[in-house]
Amino acid sequence: MNQEVVNYLLAYENMKIIQRKDMFNFSLDTVLLAHFCTINKDLDEIVDFGTNNAAIPLLLSLRTDKKITGIEIQKEAVDLALKNIQLNHLEQQIEIIHSDIKEYVKDAQKVKLVICNPPFFRVDERSNLNENEYLKIARHEIKINLEEIVQSAARILDNKGRFAMVHRPDRMIEIINMMQKYDIEPKRIRFVYPKVGKDSHIFLIEGMYKGNKGLKIEAPLYAHNEDGSYSNEVRKMFGEDIHE
Amino acid sequence: MNQEVVNYLLAYENMKIIQRKDMFNFSLDTVLLAHFCTINKDLDEIVDFGTNNAAIPLLLSLRTDKKITGIEIQKEAVDLALKNIQLNHLEQQIEIIHSDIKEYVKDAQKVKLVICNPPFFRVDERSNLNENEYLKIARHEIKINLEEIVQSAARILDNKGRFAMVHRPDRMIEIINMMQKYDIEPKRIRFVYPKVGKDSHIFLIEGMYKGNKGLKIEAPLYAHNEDGSYSNEVRKMFGEDIHE
Repeated sequence: MNQEVVNYLLAYENMKIIQRKDMFNFSLDTVLLAHFCTINKDLDEIVDFGTNNAAIPLLLSLRTDKKITGIEIQKEAVDLALKNIQLNHLEQQIEIIHSDIKEYVKDAQKVKLVICNPPFFRVDERSNLNENEYLKIARHEIKINLEEIVQSAARILDNKGRFAMVHRPDRMIEIINMMQKYDIEPKRIRFVYPKVGKDSHIFLIEGMYKGNKGLKIEAPLYAHNEDGSYSNEVRKMFGEDIHE
Repeated sequence: MNQEVVNYLLAYENMKIIQRKDMFNFSLDTVLLAHFCTINKDLDEIVDFGTNNAAIPLLLSLRTDKKITGIEIQKEAVDLALKNIQLNHLEQQIEIIHSDIKEYVKDAQKVKLVICNPPFFRVDERSNLNENEYLKIARHEIKINLEEIVQSAARILDNKGRFAMVHRPDRMIEIINMMQKYDIEPKRIRFVYPKVGKDSHIFLIEGMYKGNKGLKIEAPLYAHNEDGSYSNEVRKMFGEDIHE
């Protein structure tokens, strides 16, 4: 009944991921966030809140050699994450901790980068009767809400440490307010548009703990071409070798 | 010494504008804002805060027949505005009031739309020794600051009335916070980018007084093509007849 399948995480990289059809599967949001967050030489350790099957740590391992710690509350997702780390021989770099994020941060080390692809929907929002418990927890703020995520990030961030998140633009103002409430100053925002001429449907935001004010709105990213195919920029993120 | 010149406000419309070289001259920001604000059938009167030489009322007169009132604190700008209204035979539609915005709103009628192309810079920011008093007042928050503008708009807006502004993205968070402080809920934002691949340098925002939450990030607007010429979308706003 556990419908495990092995997918390519990236098109032309030697990287695979085991997923379960009945659980969260990595998506465009995952790939966008793993590419967006700032990776620089100051990094020591990266913490991924709600890592699920470890898609983000796997993708980040292509950008950095630093330690990556994924926190995950669902036991079944932790099992998948561990399999994925083994499958890709990343046991030395990626650690998975089976914990509630709110508990984890109580006595965790300070880090320079926290990232999170959070549940997008409030508990009562867009409820889908067909969703099983795994998907409900991944998509809805059942186990943790936006404020708790931001507060938890602030708690383990070093001064000038960064927090990067992917979310929906209709919650942007709430996210900015919440980040400022916990002293994470928004520094970079990038809006993603389904195609030319449409409203943004996803956005990426990165803030700095105890950072100075000063926000940049980066170049827009189009997910798809007019014909519905992925744009070249997204295809590159998925590991395709595009010659323009 | 008053170097008045007559410019075409729009390329192929029968609309001209008298400007003074030593004073504020209409710019891309002006044209973007006049195109961005929501004009619908509920409108009664539009108020333009800091109308200067009336460029925005002139442009808006091409989109609506409703009354447009421009408020301007500088006497010399009021004189130019009145000349421009005469030049374009718009005395029946556009009224100019020589007043401090903060004074005007104390006993003005409620309206459905307030727009403003405000001074972008704080008093101490980007001070340019070559700027004369006219330009300083137009560009810096000398006579009025962001909070006073937003507070003044809220004071004369009908319930569900709109407030539209053009500004710089590095002040977006401050603007959102200020709008919410005075019960103007941001509903639409559009980012303008100098060209493909660059950070946004201008943004347009429209909020609704006592409106519900729910923000849309509209399709990006590119000001220029790769070669530095205006993009087709901007050329259309300037009144050019573009066939794509």
